[in-house]
Amino acid sequence: MTTRGRVDPRRLAREIAFEQTVELPSGAFPIELEERVVGRVEEVQRRAPSLYRAVVSYPLAAVERELPQILNLLFGNVSMLSGIRIVGIDWPESLLRTFRGPGHGIEGLRRLAMADRRRPLLCAAIKPVGLSATDLARQCATLALAGVDIVKDDHGLANQQSAPFRERVVRCQEAVLAANRRSGRNCLYFPNLTCGLGELQSRIYLVNSLDIRGVVVSPLLVGLDTVRWIGETTDLVLFSHPALSGVFFQPGHGIAPEILYGQIFRLIGSDGVIFPNTGGRFPVDSQTCNAIQRELRRPLGHLAPAWPVPGGGIDAAKIGHWIDKYGPDTVFLLGSTLHARDDLLLAAEEVVRAVRRRAL
Amino acid sequence: MTTRGRVDPRRLAREIAFEQTVELPSGAFPIELEERVVGRVEEVQRRAPSLYRAVVSYPLAAVERELPQILNLLFGNVSMLSGIRIVGIDWPESLLRTFRGPGHGIEGLRRLAMADRRRPLLCAAIKPVGLSATDLARQCATLALAGVDIVKDDHGLANQQSAPFRERVVRCQEAVLAANRRSGRNCLYFPNLTCGLGELQSRIYLVNSLDIRGVVVSPLLVGLDTVRWIGETTDLVLFSHPALSGVFFQPGHGIAPEILYGQIFRLIGSDGVIFPNTGGRFPVDSQTCNAIQRELRRPLGHLAPAWPVPGGGIDAAKIGHWIDKYGPDTVFLLGSTLHARDDLLLAAEEVVRAVRRRAL
Repeated sequence: MTTRGRVDPRRLAREIAFEQTVELPSGAFPIELEERVVGRVEEVQRRAPSLYRAVVSYPLAAVERELPQILNLLFGNVSMLSGIRIVGIDWPESLLRTFRGPGHGIEGLRRLAMADRRRPLLCAAIKPVGLSATDLARQCATLALAGVDIVKDDHGLANQQSAPFRERVVRCQEAVLAANRRSGRNCLYFPNLTCGLGELQSRIYLVNSLDIRGVVVSPLLVGLDTVRWIGETTDLVLFSHPALSGVFFQPGHGIAPEILYGQIFRLIGSDGVIFPNTGGRFPVDSQTCNAIQRELRRPLGHLAPAWPVPGGGIDAAKIGHWIDKYGPDTVFLLGSTLHARDDLLLAAEEVVRAVRRRAL
Repeated sequence: MTTRGRVDPRRLAREIAFEQTVELPSGAFPIELEERVVGRVEEVQRRAPSLYRAVVSYPLAAVERELPQILNLLFGNVSMLSGIRIVGIDWPESLLRTFRGPGHGIEGLRRLAMADRRRPLLCAAIKPVGLSATDLARQCATLALAGVDIVKDDHGLANQQSAPFRERVVRCQEAVLAANRRSGRNCLYFPNLTCGLGELQSRIYLVNSLDIRGVVVSPLLVGLDTVRWIGETTDLVLFSHPALSGVFFQPGHGIAPEILYGQIFRLIGSDGVIFPNTGGRFPVDSQTCNAIQRELRRPLGHLAPAWPVPGGGIDAAKIGHWIDKYGPDTVFLLGSTLHARDDLLLAAEEVVRAVRRRAL
């Protein structure tokens, strides 16, 4: 982690190590616990004026294996301090082993999409909220016929009366399957599963009964552990949406995007992680995007690599540039720049052609 | 909400209204949707140089009634921008009605604790992680005999091997009931229910089978909607812990503490909301603490008022000062300052006496 500000960095690191475990000052508990459960400051390095990098290690005895307690140990109480940022986690193998991680990963989703290794995947969002299920299903058909690999619900499509979950999912899947029969392709439809906990089981049941292979989830809206649970109890491909995640990324305090998206979202089983791409609607720099994609794909214990899914305003006209930047193991998520065009089919066909041309 | 920075505030407010609903610019979707689902900027007021207050209203058609989508509409995508802070929410009655809110509230917990209206309640945490279930149960007995109203697990006590959930809960509840039989009092034990989703049902079952009346939950560790679900499917008193909440409170961007703790935590059914008190281990100002307690107790549709539970380093020796500040409808949470004393019984008895003296 890094610490920032005028406090004594060694003292702050030690306070963090105590706050995140015993929540008591030294002396207020049996001395033998200090060795057994208290965090240990391994290193404090000055990186810049008022900026320090500290390494704190925690005994597994304090962590245990459930995700909520891992999150708590990582940033629970210290989230309420300031100037502390998690910039790296060295996961012990035994802790990683308690998570399944991505159920399909890069290889698995490629097989489902029947896309060869030389090209990235294209995902397009159906939107906006307010359209009827019929209108949204029509968009699905258009995008599938154009050759898009994955058509996904906009993450704001929940269970609104304009297109209730059941009706929308039935119609959209039907539309995509019909388009596939016409095109001979294999477009996948991923509905948005972000919903109340009481509805979750019945929605998963519906999704499975329609032979839908994946879903969009928003880990910070439904709970990170709820997504882990969906991943570990179903065979669905999980695309995680970053809604609400921005609160972690304020300057100097929080969890670095490459750690939250690249490690934690992957740990909970995301096969693809949607993140705001640089140059789009959200203020993200290129270096951060590179770090996110690196983290998602790098070896991490037994966890399968996951797809970076840059989105949030990718300009379809510049898809070649983004392919050069991110490479073939990427899902490009297109939304607003397709829908802003008069002819959705034409717009989608253009970008599909551009992607396949690059792959030759 | 407030916006900060050099951007045109009216334009930013309009972008927020679109981003949080259609996620498309005007013109990229049927015009009739603009009236039906897009947010509307009601007002933009300058409050200080580069600080504006904007009111955006959203059609219920875009919200629907599930908590994850409400959170999404409130701060989902705009969390990834910067300089935006939610400082107030005007909840429509029809939306509030879809939530049960606190199941016991101030009146209900007072009855369970058999404490008259003239005095606040005292809650003490058993800690730290690493102690055995037997040691923790001994602390329970001591605190219950001293006259503390509620003994709670430290929120970092999960299912660690040193004191596994089942063994800890059985022993601690036993210890508190035995102490009650000796003292004739009615101390309540609240275990920490923060756990993986797959464990939740069996832990609730255990808690109920032991006739335990309430639990500690950490909404941001297990998911806000998971806590709502626990509240609406059980009869347990819920004390919400603020772990991980600090990421929302960075200067100029996020959700104001009085909104997150005072409205959202109450909406999901917290009967008591633990928050870091001013002057303790966490940097919180007095004004914010006042706003949190006001929000928790003020009329809000049909929702019962909830207990403010200031903690995070309340000095037992100054309890009188805090009673004057917060009044009798407060649960004071004492942890480290009790445990730092040599004699836990004596320390707890002193603060119990101080509270009862004040109430006369």
